[in-house]
Amino acid sequence: MSMLHQSQLMVSTGGRGFFEITDKVQREVERSGLCDGLCTVFVLHTSASVIITENADPDVLRDLESWISGVVRDGDPAFLHRDEGPDDMPAHVRSVLTQNSIGIPVRNGQLELGTWQGIFLWEHRLAPHRRRISLTLVGASTGPG
Amino acid sequence: MSMLHQSQLMVSTGGRGFFEITDKVQREVERSGLCDGLCTVFVLHTSASVIITENADPDVLRDLESWISGVVRDGDPAFLHRDEGPDDMPAHVRSVLTQNSIGIPVRNGQLELGTWQGIFLWEHRLAPHRRRISLTLVGASTGPG
Amino acid sequence: MSMLHQSQLMVSTGGRGFFEITDKVQREVERSGLCDGLCTVFVLHTSASVIITENADPDVLRDLESWISGVVRDGDPAFLHRDEGPDDMPAHVRSVLTQNSIGIPVRNGQLELGTWQGIFLWEHRLAPHRRRISLTLVGASTGPG
Repeated sequence: MSMLHQSQLMVSTGGRGFFEITDKVQREVERSGLCDGLCTVFVLHTSASVIITENADPDVLRDLESWISGVVRDGDPAFLHRDEGPDDMPAHVRSVLTQNSIGIPVRNGQLELGTWQGIFLWEHRLAPHRRRISLTLVGASTGPG
Repeated sequence: MSMLHQSQLMVSTGGRGFFEITDKVQREVERSGLCDGLCTVFVLHTSASVIITENADPDVLRDLESWISGVVRDGDPAFLHRDEGPDDMPAHVRSVLTQNSIGIPVRNGQLELGTWQGIFLWEHRLAPHRRRISLTLVGASTGPG
Repeated sequence: MSMLHQSQLMVSTGGRGFFEITDKVQREVERSGLCDGLCTVFVLHTSASVIITENADPDVLRDLESWISGVVRDGDPAFLHRDEGPDDMPAHVRSVLTQNSIGIPVRNGQLELGTWQGIFLWEHRLAPHRRRISLTLVGASTGPG
């Protein structure tokens, strides 16, 4: 039985950093009734990313942040676009270097993720923001056909 | 009513730079009759990208280009692959660092984009090219079920 | 006739490097009976990527590897996460900078790829690994409707 389900998640960030959303996305998969198919996670902003990375050791997240901060420098004088401060343009560069949208398989009602894979919103702005994430689920439902 | 629609867009680039395709993709969504679902934008080349970034201030695009030019240098003597010139291998690196394919939600016949999000073809080669973009739309149509 | 097909590929890597999987993915498209739709290739690991790049000149792959090795350095003393060696954290950074998931159009039973596009698993760890790739195909089948 073919189905489509769409919804939005809101994530309140405390400023730059990683916010794991794996459980929120999984709950939405369950709420939708999708059994097998594809769940596309799309962030509705140009200064935050959705990424998948290791969710066991928090040092991985610290290292991702420190690495990218070294390569895309806040306050880089080469940037012309700085309306909203020294982290404005770096946030757009980080967004383009990572991902806006990830398609994740769903099997038997579960996100099919590797053992260490977690889904994260990566907030690139220094100040807290409310971020909207759009979910689109397509595939076959568990319901009576 | 389940539906599938596929088509190609052609984009003539004037050489390295950004070419916004949001309106072209939106028009194809309308032409397809898709009401709710997923629109996947796929670029059929290895030296151009599809990205989503801010489409209000053109300085954002200039800064993206200047940032990546500083990190992936044209004519870098470390590159072995330079059959087509000093921008050949840098174009492949830029392509791998960004995206070939983006899945974008469609709701009520509209691409569901954030306020500042635009879809762009990013031409990485210095010379003008004709670039092909493939669109795949899946979901529910507006037509009579 | 609407269809969904899911399966996994295993890729045994000989350590860091590129392993082309275009033919394997194409064979799975054929086995599934998908005529037109979308094939999503998803890697179930946080230290390997799926990418699309030029598959004609092997120098392109050598240059991609040498470029990223220069930007994300093995044994970088700034990295805290090094449980599994000097290539552990760099593998996570490389994964986040590239892609976990690619949606590829399928038309008339064939992956719709540009002339020079190949699909690759990029192993970022130095040691050989067995990597799992999940495929999700949605669309219209060739079978009798």
